[in-house]
Formats: sequence, structure tokens, C-alpha cells
Amino acid sequence: MERRESVELTVLCLIYRGSQVLLQKRVKPDWQGYALPGGHVEAGESIVDAVVREMQEETGLTVFHPRLCGVKQFPIDRGRYLVFLFKTQDFQGQLRSSAEGQMVWVERARIPELHTVADFQELLSVFDRDDLTEFQYIPHHGAWDIQIR
Amino acid sequence: MERRESVELTVLCLIYRGSQVLLQKRVKPDWQGYALPGGHVEAGESIVDAVVREMQEETGLTVFHPRLCGVKQFPIDRGRYLVFLFKTQDFQGQLRSSAEGQMVWVERARIPELHTVADFQELLSVFDRDDLTEFQYIPHHGAWDIQIR
Repeated sequence: MERRESVELTVLCLIYRGSQVLLQKRVKPDWQGYALPGGHVEAGESIVDAVVREMQEETGLTVFHPRLCGVKQFPIDRGRYLVFLFKTQDFQGQLRSSAEGQMVWVERARIPELHTVADFQELLSVFDRDDLTEFQYIPHHGAWDIQIR
Repeated sequence: MERRESVELTVLCLIYRGSQVLLQKRVKPDWQGYALPGGHVEAGESIVDAVVREMQEETGLTVFHPRLCGVKQFPIDRGRYLVFLFKTQDFQGQLRSSAEGQMVWVERARIPELHTVADFQELLSVFDRDDLTEFQYIPHHGAWDIQIR
């Protein structure tokens, strides 16, 4: 018996150094604000390859040992949108920005002052806390509830 | 732009207590030997819900705070087979077996003596080591290569 779902596979990566995290000031109109860099896993591509490639493309940095720390997901039409959440403090190279947005090092303490994308602090908690694994949007009365576990 | 893949979503869970791990002596003819308990994520089901449900069904135990420690994957016909790898030492309930196989506590040191499913030790390394995230089978000259990262 085989069971399949139609899934959009993506990655996000929290690159950090000491008290700073690397954020992307997104310029795309669909989803503006400070966010983590990331993107799609290509068909058949390794998840780890995808995060390394996306970080190279969006930040100019080569990341090593990205550590999987959770998943984010929400239902989409006849399927599921799935985000693999990685973090690493192990990288090299020269920071640069891309057409996706400007890359900036931000002190964690300053994040609440920034215009971040929706639910960013809640998402960060999944990266930070070992006892949290999953960030979900669940449809509820025409809106979305967040469930974090 | 939307990019989808046809994905079979599954979970495995390493339940441990001290130096012992909980293994399933599988009785299904397709994949015999000692293995970790697990199964399919249902359509639309949370990944964490799936691991809790599968552990309940296959081991009788209620697990808490399953921690995502990696992914296993391999290509399937026009898609991808994806296994979310969890571990936990936080559980309660009475151990029981299911039609999938008999559940047994095994000393880790004894695992090499057992008839485990293929590549079990390699897979365990992804559960055990924080610097490893991904276990992949990659087609190569009509066989499968393992890549662990």
C-alpha cells in the first residue's frame, strides 16, 4: 500500500554568531518584513543540499553542519506546505544580499523592534527550544490558528 | 510559482531508557528483522501527532516531547519517500506488541548481534549524533549508495 501527499518542500535557516542572527529584509510584495533566508527544495534534491544551496544564493555564505531543529507546516490546496527548520553557527564566506532581500546581522534583543514577518517570534521559539519541534498553522473559522509543540 | 512533489511521509521513533532502546521484531515479509517502530503520517496529520499515534499503536506507550533529530529519504517513482526521525526517553504506559511485530527492550551493546533491518547502525548514527541530519539512499549503477550527513 502506498500513500502519497502533494507536498511543497522548503527550508529556512537560522544563521547565528553569538547574540546576532542573520535576517533577510524581504522585498517581495507577497511576504514583506524581516525573515529568515530560505527557499524551495528542488525535485529530488537532498534537504541538506537545499539549505546549503539556498544560503549560498541568498547570503553568499557557505554553511556547514546545518542542524535540523523542527518543521513548520500548513495545509495547501490538496496538499501540505512543509518547511524544514535548520540552524547553524558554522559558516564561511563574504556576506552579500540577493534579489530576495538585503541580509543584515541583527542583535536578538532588537528583533521585537523590527517589522518581522508574521509570527516570527513564535517560529524562533522552535529553533531555540529543544522541547519544541513543530510549528503549524491550522485552519479555524476562516483564519489560522498557530499550534506549537 | 508553486512547486510540489509527490511524497510519502512517514515517521520513526527511537524510544530509549538508559542504555536500552525499544526495538520492533518485524514480522512483515517485506522488511524483516529488528527495527524502530514507526509508520505513515496520515493526510493532513501533524508530524508530531503521527509519531505519538504510531508509538501508541505499535508499542502501547504514550510518548512525550519527541525530538526531531533528522530525516531519512530516498527517491520513489516520480516522488520521494521521507522519514522523520524522532527520539524520546519520555514516555508512559504499558509496553505491548502489535501485528507489526514484537516490541523488545534491547541493550545498545547487543544490537550488533541482532538481525537488524538493512543499514540500521548507520541510521542510528543520525539519531545519536548532533552533527548528522540526513540519511539518504541514492541510486547508483542499479544499486543504492548511502549518504549520511
